[in-house]
Amino acid sequence: MAVGHCPFPQMPPLEGVRLGCAMAGIKKPQRRDLVVIELPEGATTVGVFTQNAFCAAPVIAAKTHLESTASRYWVINTGNANAGTGEAGLTDAYRTCQAMAEQAGVVSKAVLPFSTGVIGEPLPMERLLAGLPDAFAALDGSSQAWEAAGQGILTTDTRAKGATATGIIDGQAFHINGITKGSGMIKPNMATMLGFVVSDVTIEKSLLARLLRETVDLSFNAITVDSDTSTNDACMLAATNTGVRIETDEQVATFKAALQEVMTSLAQMIIRDGEGATKFVTLEVVGAKSRCEALDVAFTVAHSPLVKTALYASDANWGRILAAVGRAPIERFDVSRVVIDLGDVRLVENGGRAAGYSEAAGSRVMGEEEITIRIDLGRGEARATVWTSDLSHDYVSINADYRS
Amino acid sequence: MAVGHCPFPQMPPLEGVRLGCAMAGIKKPQRRDLVVIELPEGATTVGVFTQNAFCAAPVIAAKTHLESTASRYWVINTGNANAGTGEAGLTDAYRTCQAMAEQAGVVSKAVLPFSTGVIGEPLPMERLLAGLPDAFAALDGSSQAWEAAGQGILTTDTRAKGATATGIIDGQAFHINGITKGSGMIKPNMATMLGFVVSDVTIEKSLLARLLRETVDLSFNAITVDSDTSTNDACMLAATNTGVRIETDEQVATFKAALQEVMTSLAQMIIRDGEGATKFVTLEVVGAKSRCEALDVAFTVAHSPLVKTALYASDANWGRILAAVGRAPIERFDVSRVVIDLGDVRLVENGGRAAGYSEAAGSRVMGEEEITIRIDLGRGEARATVWTSDLSHDYVSINADYRS
Repeated sequence: MAVGHCPFPQMPPLEGVRLGCAMAGIKKPQRRDLVVIELPEGATTVGVFTQNAFCAAPVIAAKTHLESTASRYWVINTGNANAGTGEAGLTDAYRTCQAMAEQAGVVSKAVLPFSTGVIGEPLPMERLLAGLPDAFAALDGSSQAWEAAGQGILTTDTRAKGATATGIIDGQAFHINGITKGSGMIKPNMATMLGFVVSDVTIEKSLLARLLRETVDLSFNAITVDSDTSTNDACMLAATNTGVRIETDEQVATFKAALQEVMTSLAQMIIRDGEGATKFVTLEVVGAKSRCEALDVAFTVAHSPLVKTALYASDANWGRILAAVGRAPIERFDVSRVVIDLGDVRLVENGGRAAGYSEAAGSRVMGEEEITIRIDLGRGEARATVWTSDLSHDYVSINADYRS
Repeated sequence: MAVGHCPFPQMPPLEGVRLGCAMAGIKKPQRRDLVVIELPEGATTVGVFTQNAFCAAPVIAAKTHLESTASRYWVINTGNANAGTGEAGLTDAYRTCQAMAEQAGVVSKAVLPFSTGVIGEPLPMERLLAGLPDAFAALDGSSQAWEAAGQGILTTDTRAKGATATGIIDGQAFHINGITKGSGMIKPNMATMLGFVVSDVTIEKSLLARLLRETVDLSFNAITVDSDTSTNDACMLAATNTGVRIETDEQVATFKAALQEVMTSLAQMIIRDGEGATKFVTLEVVGAKSRCEALDVAFTVAHSPLVKTALYASDANWGRILAAVGRAPIERFDVSRVVIDLGDVRLVENGGRAAGYSEAAGSRVMGEEEITIRIDLGRGEARATVWTSDLSHDYVSINADYRS
């Protein structure tokens, strides 16, 4: 299942950027499962990675390589996460980089590996390495290549996820293309598994890194399907440094707005395609003392299995929302000031059911496919928005059957 | 669904303690939904209540009454939680106490109200008050009365839950009887919704209160079905003060051990009857720096939808356990020291899959109805044990259909 329609957009070509796919048979035959993304010499690359303490071997390798060298190639396999694989897994990750580097004639550190799929099984290196030449030979900068790459990184996702934005700075157009994957084990902490975003702007690395962190915090770090932070989360951002220069405050603001648009679109696509999702839910928490507090409330509601099953059932059982808000870790929480709205319907005020509330009005909103729950804590000026999906029979089926 | 068999035990009579039920038709006709528990004059009563900020009206009323007077009557209704009902709900809770007090000829503050059921709907006071005389007339101290009361407080539970323990101090027998209910919205924080435990010992109130807190921390506060802390949690403990005196360290130790046995049995019964439960899972976290840290890891794993669906599927997808441990909020977490065992099978050591692990061995343990997951963090001496259930299709069905 998935919420709404998200056709893959037409991606503009970015100078020096090419993508190639292969069917390496890593987990299943006859599906795209190996992707190579080529960046031009002189590109600036930054990334954010999972905070899961059991971070995967490719995450360790990618972070290490990224520290020393700007990357030229990102190699992504699906079907196996190469996580929980200890020293052998790390060796496999570095061997992947080495093989790619030899193929392309670059140093090994210019290659970053990414893996997604089942945790704890050895990466089938023979099949992966055998697929690399095909992926390399397929490198192409077209919109079709972006879409094929978007398909090649999927696991339980039901559709490829891409977003693009174009802006104008000093009369010159710039572009940002991104693809992402993720459907379950989605509660990113720094980034989600996986996002790849490239722009043709020219920009300092430290500035690019800051913009990545800031836009990820409002996008990938503000979504949850099931509260489970993956071992393999990574969001990469590259600037080809071939186009317009981003330096002044105004240039940064324009570029950042476009980047945020791409990041938020990609993050929302993950929720719309969340495992078993039938609803796309926006949680807006306002009136908090801090953004951290607002996020605590939003994620407490977003993770509540009882709220999520009520959303699935289109059941206006708002008492579950109230109960979830009430158990959020808030100090000295005066619930008499809390106001909760479901779409345009007021649910809660003065510590209980709002005076004008009717079951019919609540049910009307709960029946919709896209639902906004707005929670005003009445404590301050800070706010946060989080996106989530519902908890359906399909979520259980997908995850009870995933390995079989 | 429910795990295993838990027949209601034979309860010994406790001097001055009687229980009565009525069918008040609060939500559905022809089911026991109103329970009165009578305690003797001179009894000592203590309680612990939900930490949910949106705590229910009966919780507020019960806490207020308990502060000023030892209770003689506990009045419990199912079918309606009287939570999220604002001032009107509080008035209803106090009116319930007043009506019971008039019926029994005691002061209103000697009555404590408890409610469980749907949140946010007004308590049907007319039907509740009309049922009180029937419940009062039915008061009886037999084991059958305990079992009927155990049935009268259920919501989505599939069976009545009772536990009893008998001990000997200074040659004199003492007894502890308890009943509890709870199946969903179970992640108690101070106590669970609802537990009622009575003993015939003689004991100081402050000591009884301390023993309640300590035994609840290792029982009701160590279980979770779905991470959702209820608005109505309450665990009550009464001593009739008619029997053996509990004073010396040795007497306290003997009584506490028996009390812990009853509390732990009741808490485990809630998990075995958790909504949709097909597995009973024990999470033992050892080698932590503090109990708080051990609990953080245990609850992170216990709340993971991916771990819970793997348990449901009897799928030895241990990578999900590793990923959940890795995202627990632990500072400076060296995962290379973590050892994870599934029953008698070692899953994880040295940061990855244990050398001797085989899928066949893992699947054998996962196929069992009662499963122990033992996680050694290798950081210290503290430990914690948490009990949880799996996440099944029935959990989604029960909670998507609960109000319909």
